[in-house]
Amino acid sequence: MVRNESARTGGADYRPMNEASLPAYLAGIPEVADRLGGTSVDWTVAEVGDGNLNLVFIVRGPTGVLIVKQALPYVRLVGDSWPLPLDRSYYETQALLTQGRHAPGLVPVVHHFDATMALVIMEFLTPHVIMRKGLIGGVEYPRFAATLAEFMAQTLFKTSDLYLPAAEKKAQVAVFCANTELCRITEDLVFTDPYRIAKLNHWTTPQLDDIAAEFRVDGPLKAAAQAMKLKFLSQTEALVHGDLHSGSIMATADDVRVIDPEFAFFGPMGFDVGALIGNLILAYLSQDGHATAQDPRIAYRAWILRQIAEVWTLFEARFIELWNTEGKGDAFVAELFADDAGRAALAVEQKAYMRRLFEDTLGFAGCKMIRRILGLAHVADFETIADPDVRARGERKALRLGRRLVVDRTRFADVDALCAAVVEAAKQV
Amino acid sequence: MVRNESARTGGADYRPMNEASLPAYLAGIPEVADRLGGTSVDWTVAEVGDGNLNLVFIVRGPTGVLIVKQALPYVRLVGDSWPLPLDRSYYETQALLTQGRHAPGLVPVVHHFDATMALVIMEFLTPHVIMRKGLIGGVEYPRFAATLAEFMAQTLFKTSDLYLPAAEKKAQVAVFCANTELCRITEDLVFTDPYRIAKLNHWTTPQLDDIAAEFRVDGPLKAAAQAMKLKFLSQTEALVHGDLHSGSIMATADDVRVIDPEFAFFGPMGFDVGALIGNLILAYLSQDGHATAQDPRIAYRAWILRQIAEVWTLFEARFIELWNTEGKGDAFVAELFADDAGRAALAVEQKAYMRRLFEDTLGFAGCKMIRRILGLAHVADFETIADPDVRARGERKALRLGRRLVVDRTRFADVDALCAAVVEAAKQV
Repeated sequence: MVRNESARTGGADYRPMNEASLPAYLAGIPEVADRLGGTSVDWTVAEVGDGNLNLVFIVRGPTGVLIVKQALPYVRLVGDSWPLPLDRSYYETQALLTQGRHAPGLVPVVHHFDATMALVIMEFLTPHVIMRKGLIGGVEYPRFAATLAEFMAQTLFKTSDLYLPAAEKKAQVAVFCANTELCRITEDLVFTDPYRIAKLNHWTTPQLDDIAAEFRVDGPLKAAAQAMKLKFLSQTEALVHGDLHSGSIMATADDVRVIDPEFAFFGPMGFDVGALIGNLILAYLSQDGHATAQDPRIAYRAWILRQIAEVWTLFEARFIELWNTEGKGDAFVAELFADDAGRAALAVEQKAYMRRLFEDTLGFAGCKMIRRILGLAHVADFETIADPDVRARGERKALRLGRRLVVDRTRFADVDALCAAVVEAAKQV
Repeated sequence: MVRNESARTGGADYRPMNEASLPAYLAGIPEVADRLGGTSVDWTVAEVGDGNLNLVFIVRGPTGVLIVKQALPYVRLVGDSWPLPLDRSYYETQALLTQGRHAPGLVPVVHHFDATMALVIMEFLTPHVIMRKGLIGGVEYPRFAATLAEFMAQTLFKTSDLYLPAAEKKAQVAVFCANTELCRITEDLVFTDPYRIAKLNHWTTPQLDDIAAEFRVDGPLKAAAQAMKLKFLSQTEALVHGDLHSGSIMATADDVRVIDPEFAFFGPMGFDVGALIGNLILAYLSQDGHATAQDPRIAYRAWILRQIAEVWTLFEARFIELWNTEGKGDAFVAELFADDAGRAALAVEQKAYMRRLFEDTLGFAGCKMIRRILGLAHVADFETIADPDVRARGERKALRLGRRLVVDRTRFADVDALCAAVVEAAKQV
């Protein structure tokens, strides 16, 4: 059960750690010291944070290796001109614990949380690589689609009204309501800034200047993006990860984990599914920039496309399966659907439910694609393409398709129609 | 700004008031004593609570009259076997203050709230009558439609993401998340119990035994009612009144007020609009039972029907007007729609928004109609009809129409189609 202890995160004793100060601090936590083995002089620390917000240390000892993640009181990507509350570390830890309970083995294990220091100590994943890097490198991850489908089905279903008693869910909603600052970043950067002049926006210029200007006066697109924002603001369907892109996934050939849920809050399920699929589409449309004569990426593109179809198809099937076998929540009270007529009617309603979720998924996927090209935070899939003309060609395809997904999200028959649209987008000049 | 002080509601010093103990208590509150005038020996107290949950006293003094409403720790209608938290008094007071700010003059003025005693002291409305009694008596209220349209437009719009900054709205959502026990009553009694064997259910028997049994095995109806329940549980659109039927309205020929928002929480807007319209339909379909040779209620039925159309039409127009003139919230950021293309696209999106709200309204209206005939809490509109055959004929019409509204809520073209369905339902034998 999540409790609201966020008020005590940070405080006067907070101080950012560094490679020199961390061992002495960790030596004071017996459970952690035991895992590392030896004494603090035997430990090596390396700061490896390459994300936008936090300090991340790898700590190695004679018998164990750990990750220490500490929140900074500002956005690391931008600097201390953009303050950010330390309690995001609390929400991340709570989300990790909740996800770990519902999807054991699919997120890092939490060993220790220190509210004062806004610091969480967790399992070191090795030899895992951030999946986005793998997607740029052309690496296939055989366990990806099944694992992410399972992760999303379990974590979304089991934090929804289909599984939880209303009072328990509302108590959790109330806790995560306070994670407003992180939500605000999404609200601004994903749904609003790409459609207006905003200081932090940037794009491949001058190649995309025309389409960036076009989007800023595209009434139907702006209205549709804001309709998705309203869903983000007012639908407390489930505890969503909130930032479920390929940079929040660590993978090897036989293991896949989801990390970094500091944007977690109760929101629309489609926001997670859409983030994942939108980022797969970006990976697909960036492959031209990574193809070489030896490695034209034709088979790899086909693999990405299959992942898009599979992750949705497996997620949908698993979600319905959980609903039918563990649907003990206050919505769709199981007792009402125990007879044949009830079962048949529930199956029809479940189909309608998944259809709505599919449309949400497309809308959020489109918003996420557009913001990664016109907004503040871009993706390495495109940023690592050195030739700006090649990069911009792919980005333009992603912008056009993103717009279709947002504006026409109700017009895609199914995930095959989505995949066909991705292939078609890639072929455009 | 709503703050969460609910934790201190009730406690060891709580005691239920009675006509004898109340004056001494009130004498201890200078502002209240001043309003009543004289001293406590000059005050007369009458307990008049005829609702389901609380004590209600009218206190008269030489210079003023006040209402004192105190929560009891159980459901008055059922007895102390059904405990109910005292903090509902806190949520009611917070909702009254919020509504009073957004719709001044349309709710009673709050003079004092005592958390320990779970007691609120407010304006005495006179010569107001509970509107449900007026509807049974055939009384027209010229200000009804305009006032309720204004009340709903103001209170729903101004507690939504169309008006509030996200952080402020989330803080309020978190506060009202704790009003779970009252929400649970609605969840059970409105959406679930009418569709299963439940101890507290009752209906006009044996006349309605067949249709009650039919509804309990009606798969599509049960699935649709539970889909509405899921909206109730997971859409935090606005601070809804939560119990907006004709028994929560006090009216005279020239004044209309909304009272009793103790079921308030952040939920779907259509729940309020649907409760109101559903109860107007019940009033319409019960008129056969109140008609006499001298007063056949033909013109009065036509008046009720006009109220259904007007309350929706005026509400819709006012809501859009507020959106266009005061839409400063984090959803549909006004800056994006300041140009012609933006304005045109926003108008299209607003139409779609109101269409979804209309469909929600019909679905909730249908659920509310059904539960008032097959569930625990019935309405005087039907209960006061002495002849059970006459009563059951009207109730059966309401059940059939209620089912249509829930199951076919997306198939009504507009409010005129709804009114036509009401007229048609009344004509059925």
